[in-house]
Amino acid sequence: MTVYLVGAGPGDPGLLTRRGAELLAIADVVIYDRLSAPSLLDLAPADAERINVGKRSPGGATQDEIHELLVRHGRTGRTVVRLKGGDPFVFARGAEEMAVLYEAGIPVEVVPGITSAIAAPAYAGIPVTRRFSSTSFTVVTGHEDPTKGRTEVDWESIAKVGGTIVILMGVANIDTIAARLQAGGLAPDTPAAAVRWGTRPEQHTIRATLGTIAAQPLAAPSVIVVGEVAGDDLAWYTHRPLFGRSIVVTRAPQQASRLTDRLHDRGASVLGVPTIDIVDAADGGAGLRAALDRVGDYEWLVVTSPNGAARTLAALGDARRLAGVKLAAIGPGTAEVLTRSLLTPDLLPDRYVAEGLLEAFPDPPAPGAKVLL
Amino acid sequence: MTVYLVGAGPGDPGLLTRRGAELLAIADVVIYDRLSAPSLLDLAPADAERINVGKRSPGGATQDEIHELLVRHGRTGRTVVRLKGGDPFVFARGAEEMAVLYEAGIPVEVVPGITSAIAAPAYAGIPVTRRFSSTSFTVVTGHEDPTKGRTEVDWESIAKVGGTIVILMGVANIDTIAARLQAGGLAPDTPAAAVRWGTRPEQHTIRATLGTIAAQPLAAPSVIVVGEVAGDDLAWYTHRPLFGRSIVVTRAPQQASRLTDRLHDRGASVLGVPTIDIVDAADGGAGLRAALDRVGDYEWLVVTSPNGAARTLAALGDARRLAGVKLAAIGPGTAEVLTRSLLTPDLLPDRYVAEGLLEAFPDPPAPGAKVLL
Repeated sequence: MTVYLVGAGPGDPGLLTRRGAELLAIADVVIYDRLSAPSLLDLAPADAERINVGKRSPGGATQDEIHELLVRHGRTGRTVVRLKGGDPFVFARGAEEMAVLYEAGIPVEVVPGITSAIAAPAYAGIPVTRRFSSTSFTVVTGHEDPTKGRTEVDWESIAKVGGTIVILMGVANIDTIAARLQAGGLAPDTPAAAVRWGTRPEQHTIRATLGTIAAQPLAAPSVIVVGEVAGDDLAWYTHRPLFGRSIVVTRAPQQASRLTDRLHDRGASVLGVPTIDIVDAADGGAGLRAALDRVGDYEWLVVTSPNGAARTLAALGDARRLAGVKLAAIGPGTAEVLTRSLLTPDLLPDRYVAEGLLEAFPDPPAPGAKVLL
Repeated sequence: MTVYLVGAGPGDPGLLTRRGAELLAIADVVIYDRLSAPSLLDLAPADAERINVGKRSPGGATQDEIHELLVRHGRTGRTVVRLKGGDPFVFARGAEEMAVLYEAGIPVEVVPGITSAIAAPAYAGIPVTRRFSSTSFTVVTGHEDPTKGRTEVDWESIAKVGGTIVILMGVANIDTIAARLQAGGLAPDTPAAAVRWGTRPEQHTIRATLGTIAAQPLAAPSVIVVGEVAGDDLAWYTHRPLFGRSIVVTRAPQQASRLTDRLHDRGASVLGVPTIDIVDAADGGAGLRAALDRVGDYEWLVVTSPNGAARTLAALGDARRLAGVKLAAIGPGTAEVLTRSLLTPDLLPDRYVAEGLLEAFPDPPAPGAKVLL
């Protein structure tokens, strides 16, 4: 089939494109680098093959090995997603990978991603262009190909352009870079900022000037911005109510995603530590199926969790079998599972705990009536 | 609540971010410019207020009027999405709008968008960076603020940087721009390309050199790329099987989206011309509800379209009322509506038309049995 070069974006998983998410959802194989948003891998089917080729991970692949992998999987006729941080064509060697596939006659498509060059400053309140103060921006790598043996970037000319300068992978060489930009004519008091872990909950911005930035405690990965806009501080991401907080979610993974998303949208760093593990019943569900085979004998069917409701309905197979059976749900989340299957609970307590259900239950049920819990 | 500055991306609606789509889905108000992807407005709730402030549309708003609108709606406590083409901070005056909201004390968040500066070249097979040939790219507007009265962009210095040059809104001034880039030292045979309507089905690329680009029949909106990579031609978008084809979809809008998406993914330009209009029954559904009140009297319930199935189930209210009634669906799409409500059709014909249903029907039904169609 096709190999898709998909940009994963800068770190915030919400910045993946819709097309990228759709392709991940149908991927047979995902070949990925060290990602700023590892949770994106969860979008692929559970049985998709996941291949980590991050160059800095133990046993990381060389670029030639990546090319060989892409061609080999591309030839199998499976849907291959090559997931790359940021945008595939912004310092990500996507062009090389595409050229290799192209020459091998393997269909390839590109899905651009949000680049950290623009998004990391944006999340730090720095617009890369601004009317009257910046009519251009130059994105440049501070980490040149070491095999070149010489410095290729003409920092002095970049300084003369007069627009915003966005430096990726520049932390290690920032002293040389800052000196050469000043040699090119930029004033030492030109604003400069370094955004570390941009768009992630750990985001941290250091603000300085071109003359002082090299003396700051910078650390990779950082996006460094030089120019008038680097003095802007239209902060919003770090003002979110839960920014900087780490929150542990103990729900089972199947039930955690909505809560996790909401916490994340409010700025929290969310760590999933499930204290509940939802497993299949030891009897493989035989007891549930046996009870449901006689569900018509019961007056009430009581479901006490969304997961329990979903499993009960799946084992039931067809809603018509609930004819004459009344339904009780412990809370609105559980009730929603029922209503999605066009089943309206007859009982929903005011308090969403077992005691609330007991209090709300009609007392007593008809003598001899059976309740399936 | 909050005003969200959302980047709509370059035109392909699949390039909207997931976060942007989520926010549109909960928007009370959408304030939008002339968009390259008008279909994105369909993601907002049907009852959301949609305000077109495109400066080139009749009665288009001035920037001050846009600011006033944003502040006024931001103060109402409603969820406001300010939808801007491309990325809000790349020549889109997003920084000004954000500053106005910021000063008014209105919470504001930014959702970056895919910029056409990177994506339009990518869809034309041109990577803005490439190892060994481009270690930087400069994005610059060719259409400067006319109130400035003088040319601010230092094209000669940009030429000296030696990386890729991406010019937005440069068609009108391309002769001056090309001359000044050559005056800055770029050779006349430097590759140059102009991508018009990038990422849209109408995409068209003109390839030339810096010396010849101004003589080409360029037209706005185009992204112009100058530099070695502009000679790359890793074409994929225009190689899709339906690229360049316009396809009319006559289905009712409620049923067309999946087909439309599939055609679009194969490169087609899809025009929706619904020849079927699904309307409420003249009796407001009273006849359907009356029949369903006695649904237990019927042996069969036959649904002949996904829309009919959905309306029938909605009017039914609770699946338990179908106890003892057999279900027939005309085809798999209709059957899927039933199975989503945990109802398994008892009959699904081999041919998905009315005649197929008749052929497959058990013949004869029990004497006196009633079929609800």
